[in-house]
Formats: sequence, structure tokens, C-alpha cells
Amino acid sequence: MKSVSDPAVLRREIRAGRFTGPTTGHAGGYLQGNLAVLPAALAGDFLAYCTRNPKPCPLLGVAEPGSGAIPALGADLDLRTDVPLYRVFSPAGRRERVADVRGDWRDDLVAFVLGCSFSFEESLQRAGIPLRHLAAGRNVPMYISDIATRAAGPFGGPMVVSMRGFSPADAIRAIVLSERHPLAHGAPVHIGDPARIGITDLAAPDFGDPPVLEPGDIPVFWACGVTPQVALRAAEPEIAITHEPGCMLVTDLPAEGASIGLNAA
Amino acid sequence: MKSVSDPAVLRREIRAGRFTGPTTGHAGGYLQGNLAVLPAALAGDFLAYCTRNPKPCPLLGVAEPGSGAIPALGADLDLRTDVPLYRVFSPAGRRERVADVRGDWRDDLVAFVLGCSFSFEESLQRAGIPLRHLAAGRNVPMYISDIATRAAGPFGGPMVVSMRGFSPADAIRAIVLSERHPLAHGAPVHIGDPARIGITDLAAPDFGDPPVLEPGDIPVFWACGVTPQVALRAAEPEIAITHEPGCMLVTDLPAEGASIGLNAA
Repeated sequence: MKSVSDPAVLRREIRAGRFTGPTTGHAGGYLQGNLAVLPAALAGDFLAYCTRNPKPCPLLGVAEPGSGAIPALGADLDLRTDVPLYRVFSPAGRRERVADVRGDWRDDLVAFVLGCSFSFEESLQRAGIPLRHLAAGRNVPMYISDIATRAAGPFGGPMVVSMRGFSPADAIRAIVLSERHPLAHGAPVHIGDPARIGITDLAAPDFGDPPVLEPGDIPVFWACGVTPQVALRAAEPEIAITHEPGCMLVTDLPAEGASIGLNAA
Repeated sequence: MKSVSDPAVLRREIRAGRFTGPTTGHAGGYLQGNLAVLPAALAGDFLAYCTRNPKPCPLLGVAEPGSGAIPALGADLDLRTDVPLYRVFSPAGRRERVADVRGDWRDDLVAFVLGCSFSFEESLQRAGIPLRHLAAGRNVPMYISDIATRAAGPFGGPMVVSMRGFSPADAIRAIVLSERHPLAHGAPVHIGDPARIGITDLAAPDFGDPPVLEPGDIPVFWACGVTPQVALRAAEPEIAITHEPGCMLVTDLPAEGASIGLNAA
């Protein structure tokens, strides 16, 4: 569909059920976020987990228990309706591509919004740096590395990383530019030899599509927002709600200049 | 000798002939510069050359013809006495380790001060990033690359690069930190495979000492201040004055936050 530039307009379209797809390419210049909703009993540990692992889990905001609002991310924002598609893991089973989770919401649910890589990818594209997976119409390849995250309660496990290949000169620029987006995973966690972080076969990612690499490319690895999703699943909460990959929450926070930290309670 | 922290005090010691060695480790936090002095007839082309190649030739200041002063770099500063040791190339021949060039000065000489790598190396050391050549008591290795500089008049030729080896994580941090020092060569020009920039044998640098590399290190290449010296020599001016390697001009400009551009006329 036609690109929607205003984040509040885009959220209204999503809420009305008229926009149900990936949010990439829409609301350019505004931060988009991953959604993670879990019972209050686990929220303290999950908050600690995010705080201890800011690169894979950059915290954009946390809602009050039972609330779908985080006004600092958007005055009108409702986390129960404003994500194009949700995944729900509940005692009733697993449901995918759910458009509205008001029926699943409970008074003890706490919603977290975490930064995603779209913002820094936008920044690289504006700088004229080719993103080979986008040019090939693929998802970015993601790998379970042997870099351990810092645990908090039941949350822990390995860091998931995304990989993008660049010419050496573009790799240098990509490192410099991504570091300016701490809420979108910031600077890479590794460059070069994949084996150094426990990746044995670059051609076989654990998530996403196989990589696109050109001769002489340097593989550059960033902390990935799938990390907290893996940690969340491993903790086996009674109920959890997340977004469908690519179908993000669009916020009113500017992609440039937003700083690290908890933006709202 | 004991480290001198105040740049004006250090310049006074140098001027009095009591300090005649390398300036590294002194006047921490202040920019140090390469000196290049040449006849006014060539000064316009050399200025253009620096402007077109800001990474190897970051311009800190240019003096008026015949003058040894650049007040913006230090109110008291005298370029004819304040460098610990000079090299003089003149019709009378080549002289090295000259402590004072007042006797060689002419009304038609124009002095340029260009940034050097000391400031970004300081920044890496403060961040706890090991600089292997310093730990080994060696000079940094420098190589004539096949990256062409942009020519101006008789000035041109290949870019000389310095190489430092880092673990992948430190390489990422070194790229981010050095980019914040545009007057000290800024971000690297290359990482990884030396052959990509025409370096066939990393163990045999063209200048400086052989490299110190640890297993798994990524070679990181920065534009080097030897570039304009090579260009200057190739232009065969009737007279030229430079500093002895390592014996720099110490300025009052803070190493942090100094911006690109011509600081003084």
C-alpha cells in the first residue's frame, strides 16, 4: 500500500483494521518497536533483563500493569489494537496473525516496547549504503550466537544477532552510523569471522533468510530484537503477546536523537 | 622526561631548547600537529590539496606568508622555534634534527599545521583499547596504499595509511571513537584485507616498524599524515621544512570537540 508518513495516522489505520501488514517503509523518521507483553509476576525480571542487555533489548517504554497506553510513545497509542498483527501464547494455545488482542488482555499484563533495527537501517539507506537483503527482497539473516546475555530471573540465554554484509568502506560507515542509534541496537557487537561468536555456517541462519554477500564483503553482526523473544519463550510464561515479525508498533519518537533510557512508565 | 601537561609551558620548554624529543604523552587533551612549510608560490596548490584530502591532511591552520604565528593554535606560538626537531630541505642540502629554523626562514615561506593521529590514539587509550605498537614500544606501521589522493597542482600521489590491529569488538569501538576526531584523521579508510588497498605484505611496512598483530585481530587502516609529506617531497619545492617524525607542534586546541575547518589565517 501507499506509504503512510504520519505515525498517528498509521496507528489509526491499523486500529481500524485497514492496515494489516509489515510497517517497514512507513512512518519514516520515527522509531518503531518490538512488543512484549507478559504477566506482572515476571515483569520485574524482564525489566531487569532488558536493562542488563540494552543492545539486544533497548527499552523504549513500559506500560502500567493492565494498561495498553504509553503516552510518551504516542498520546493516542493503544498497545492492544495498534500493532498490525500479534502473536498470542496463552493457556488456550498459540495463535498467529491476530489483529486485535483486547479480548486477551488482562489486568495483570505488563507491556514492554523495545527498539528495533528499522531506524538504523533507514539511516544507512539515507547515507547511500546498500542493504543487500533489502535489495534482494529478503529478510535479514539472524543467528543464535554463543555470546551470553546477562540473566535476570528466568530470562537469559544466548544473544541472537542479525548479519549484514558490506564493502570495507561501507562497513566502517555502517558502524559509525548505527552507533548513533542506541535505541535501534546501536553499534555492532562483532565484525568479521562468524566462528568467533559461535556461528558455524553463515549460509544457514537460525531465523530469516540466507545472507546476500558479495566478494570481499565484511560480515557485520548486530544485537537483534529476537533475543528477548527467545528469552521470553524459554521462560514459559502462562501468557505472552508479541508482534508478528515485521509488523511493528509505530511510535511518535523521532528516530534521530532519541536517547537511551526508560521513556515512560 | 616528566610529562608536561600545559601546551604553552611545553612550547616554552621547547623554545628554550630544554625539550628536544617526541611529544607523544605530553600535553594530553590538546591537538598536536604536523608541520609543513613551503614557498608561497606553491602554497595555494598545497592548500587545495589539503582541502581535497581532509582525511590524510586535516588542516589545523595556515600562517600568513613569512609569518611563524598562528594565534588560533596558541597566542604565543612561533612555528620557527616551537617544534622540538625539524627537517630542512633547501638548496644547501638536507638537514635533520634541527632545533631552530629561524635562520632558514624566508619572507615567502608559508607554514601549514595538519592534524596527527596522537589525539585519536589518546582517545582509544582512555577507552581501554590496547594499542599494540605502543605496548611493544614500536612506531605504528605505515604503508603506501593504492588509494589515490585528489591532486592539486604538483601535489598528488598515493595515500599513506597507518595500521593498527584490534580484536573485532575493539575494532568496532576504535572506528566509533576515531570518527569523533576528524582533525586527527577521523574514521578509518579500510578494514580487513590489506590487498584490497594495494598492500601486499603487512609485515613489511614502508615506514615505521613491523606490525604487532594477535590471533584473530582485524587490521584497521587510517589515513596517515605522512601522505602530505610524500606529496610535498614529490613536488620538489626549492625549500621545505617539516617536523621530525614524532616531534610535533603542540597546540592549544582541545583534542575533544575541535571541528573540521581552517582555524586560522
